[in-house]
Amino acid sequence: MRIDLNSDIGEAFGAWAMGADESVLDHVTSANVACGFHAGDPLVMQRTVAAAARRGVAIGAHPSLPDLQGFGRREMRITPAEAQALVVYQIGALAAFARAAGTRLTHVKPHGALYNMAARDAVLADAIARAVADLDASLVLVGLAGSELPAAGARLGLRVAHEAFADRRYEADGRLTPRSEPGAVNDDIDAAIAQAIAIATRREATTRAGETVRIVADTLCVHGDRPDAGEFAGRLRAALVVAGVEVRALQASALP
Amino acid sequence: MRIDLNSDIGEAFGAWAMGADESVLDHVTSANVACGFHAGDPLVMQRTVAAAARRGVAIGAHPSLPDLQGFGRREMRITPAEAQALVVYQIGALAAFARAAGTRLTHVKPHGALYNMAARDAVLADAIARAVADLDASLVLVGLAGSELPAAGARLGLRVAHEAFADRRYEADGRLTPRSEPGAVNDDIDAAIAQAIAIATRREATTRAGETVRIVADTLCVHGDRPDAGEFAGRLRAALVVAGVEVRALQASALP
Amino acid sequence: MRIDLNSDIGEAFGAWAMGADESVLDHVTSANVACGFHAGDPLVMQRTVAAAARRGVAIGAHPSLPDLQGFGRREMRITPAEAQALVVYQIGALAAFARAAGTRLTHVKPHGALYNMAARDAVLADAIARAVADLDASLVLVGLAGSELPAAGARLGLRVAHEAFADRRYEADGRLTPRSEPGAVNDDIDAAIAQAIAIATRREATTRAGETVRIVADTLCVHGDRPDAGEFAGRLRAALVVAGVEVRALQASALP
Amino acid sequence: MRIDLNSDIGEAFGAWAMGADESVLDHVTSANVACGFHAGDPLVMQRTVAAAARRGVAIGAHPSLPDLQGFGRREMRITPAEAQALVVYQIGALAAFARAAGTRLTHVKPHGALYNMAARDAVLADAIARAVADLDASLVLVGLAGSELPAAGARLGLRVAHEAFADRRYEADGRLTPRSEPGAVNDDIDAAIAQAIAIATRREATTRAGETVRIVADTLCVHGDRPDAGEFAGRLRAALVVAGVEVRALQASALP
Repeated sequence: MRIDLNSDIGEAFGAWAMGADESVLDHVTSANVACGFHAGDPLVMQRTVAAAARRGVAIGAHPSLPDLQGFGRREMRITPAEAQALVVYQIGALAAFARAAGTRLTHVKPHGALYNMAARDAVLADAIARAVADLDASLVLVGLAGSELPAAGARLGLRVAHEAFADRRYEADGRLTPRSEPGAVNDDIDAAIAQAIAIATRREATTRAGETVRIVADTLCVHGDRPDAGEFAGRLRAALVVAGVEVRALQASALP
Repeated sequence: MRIDLNSDIGEAFGAWAMGADESVLDHVTSANVACGFHAGDPLVMQRTVAAAARRGVAIGAHPSLPDLQGFGRREMRITPAEAQALVVYQIGALAAFARAAGTRLTHVKPHGALYNMAARDAVLADAIARAVADLDASLVLVGLAGSELPAAGARLGLRVAHEAFADRRYEADGRLTPRSEPGAVNDDIDAAIAQAIAIATRREATTRAGETVRIVADTLCVHGDRPDAGEFAGRLRAALVVAGVEVRALQASALP
Repeated sequence: MRIDLNSDIGEAFGAWAMGADESVLDHVTSANVACGFHAGDPLVMQRTVAAAARRGVAIGAHPSLPDLQGFGRREMRITPAEAQALVVYQIGALAAFARAAGTRLTHVKPHGALYNMAARDAVLADAIARAVADLDASLVLVGLAGSELPAAGARLGLRVAHEAFADRRYEADGRLTPRSEPGAVNDDIDAAIAQAIAIATRREATTRAGETVRIVADTLCVHGDRPDAGEFAGRLRAALVVAGVEVRALQASALP
Repeated sequence: MRIDLNSDIGEAFGAWAMGADESVLDHVTSANVACGFHAGDPLVMQRTVAAAARRGVAIGAHPSLPDLQGFGRREMRITPAEAQALVVYQIGALAAFARAAGTRLTHVKPHGALYNMAARDAVLADAIARAVADLDASLVLVGLAGSELPAAGARLGLRVAHEAFADRRYEADGRLTPRSEPGAVNDDIDAAIAQAIAIATRREATTRAGETVRIVADTLCVHGDRPDAGEFAGRLRAALVVAGVEVRALQASALP
């Protein structure tokens, strides 16, 4: 039993702060770093890469639709060619900070609306996977467990990671309960930790209706924008270890 | 006698066109490609890298201050740390397109106001050189001939290139005549070609007052935004060859 | 028989030019001026308002989704509250240039993807109409003929204008043939002029299949990004006049 | 003895929060609202105008250089024409939210680097004053006490307001101690309040060296980005009232 804990970080921008990156980084094994399109200016990226590298946390790119004002959460109708190009651009920008810091990227996880669109749109997912494959085929492509994005990565021979959520509810068909519905988010830390352990040890979660649904995941997302994100990450990791789960990063890239 | 011909290209953005990249690329040996901060969105960058690679033209990053509206031509008071980070970001983004296209970057030449500021401000120049050195010490750093930027690169052990201009006038002290003064630009192609040959073969140019000034340069800039840019580049290259000058790119990087 | 000729102008941005505004303005009666979100920086807006005012062309706001890179043509999933606020913002910005030039706005026509979304989404259309009504109920709201946007304006008591196209094909149900289909655009000027006259004089157009479809319109759009936009506008206006159609702007606002 | 208390508010952007606007608005008499160029997206502007209007706080525009990443704090070399146009644009955008909320703007105070540049550069100050005069000559132009900006406003016949600072130190020549020097900011609330009372009642402040310097001001700035901004504003206002100073907004515009 092994799982990765990932979190979206580096989402400050200029004078604006966001999240509790330092305390979250103390507990997760992978960091998805904003690349400037929804958050993260060059100085923030540099600082974030350094903070992750200091702790040996695996660093991944977190590319987004170009929408600072909407924090990358508003779906945009972009072409596959646009998607591919903006993913190449953002991975490249972040990879440069990793290289300048003497380290390298290990993975790519799209952000927000791009993540959601890539989970259900195979053509868009293929474009994103193609960007990763063209750029560095050793990068792990992270997407919603069981969705189109990891499927697209697998089609191109990429290593992929299926992502599940400790603090989001699942439906009987394995989908996330939409945020617009009541009970979509497990605000209660204990319930979220219980769900994480169920996923990591038994590959299942319990729906709102009490049914059991199979969830196979390589990595669990720790939302860094919870006010208690650092504490949540720490307790989650400790509970997983107590439950006999090995918490470690997705295998690092072997390429230079 | 040897010289490189470089041009700033890839300066379209979204629906807006700029310059005559294809015809200029037929004649120059190095292309400085906009990286998204003053021009060049991801699709434009991808297309521009492909166009340069097809012709074997050396590809370099052309990083800018973050100012689309001002096309990177308005000086901004940024800190050295900001300069270093924005240069890393932009080189990385462009390098990713080069890598995805199966090629690599050979050089870095700051754009517009960043170029001018780095020519006269040693601290800023050091920050830019540091960005290049941290990222890829095999990249050639291109700056105004005899200015602070190549000096900063040399201090860090980088290979540098001194740039001169065929179609700009020089003052007796070796500086460019400011654009705000009459006669600053040689609109006449024949006069510009004559100046290029004088620089490439005799390392000198003639000032407005008729004096001779020493100009030592590794590369000549061909402005791509002249309406006759393609024709100018073609005639300039032919004239240099006739004058016995070898026109070829700055030595390509040896690193992967 | 009376009709307005309108055109989207002021779509330059910084160093980038777009369209043939001056020559189009010589022939149209209403100008829809970009407000900075898809095109048009403050200097461009100021210059464009002055050029329209000099000729007595009615000036309207042309608000867009916030997407410079996509020229406002990519649909974004925004909330009605976001739509309302961004329309207020952009109308206000343009109105200030009109006021500083001693004139005022007469109308509002959403741009690109916002126009298309508002044509079919009643909730979004209501939000846009609400923005106009809150700001200046004397402004005419312009939308696709027979679509949700003029309907929303009418619900709020606004004066509305239905827009038709000379150079776009219509389907039997009165919709525009999608641009993705062959024959969607009448590139032939004579055919476009014939369609304009049919709409202005007989309130009908002919579909690709040869059927007659009823099109009731107050204003005809002259695309300013055709290479022959100025000539097209001039010939269109002359032909309408010859056909007995009065070409004049939508009634100007009576408010200060 | 009368003075206005103003604060810069509405400096959130998208998902990013900034400052304690609500608690500051409970105590100040004038609010300078960000207009989208350094902070403040359309929704934030709408919300901020509403919050100020609810409390009867006078609403002014707080236009900035176009620099979200630098929060408008980085000087840019812009032309007077650019300055004039960007000020018109931003005032117009904010005025629209005021109008939609049934109120109107009373003043204009440039932000950050634009404020500092306008304090010392008469040509830039004239351009900003011209923008205000062209748009609405009833608006009060607020600038650094004794600087070029109020002088420019006065030259054009505008009503102007001279601004002083409670929590910034003054030099013997009446200038602010640069932030780069120790002691530039009065972090101590009691000392800041004492300085405010000295300015409001005796038109003087005490320099670091203990000298007395004459400071004539119409309005005092309450920095909203202090962690204790709300408390500071409340105590400052109470202390001024106790000292016999009437705290009220600059006279509201009489125009529609």
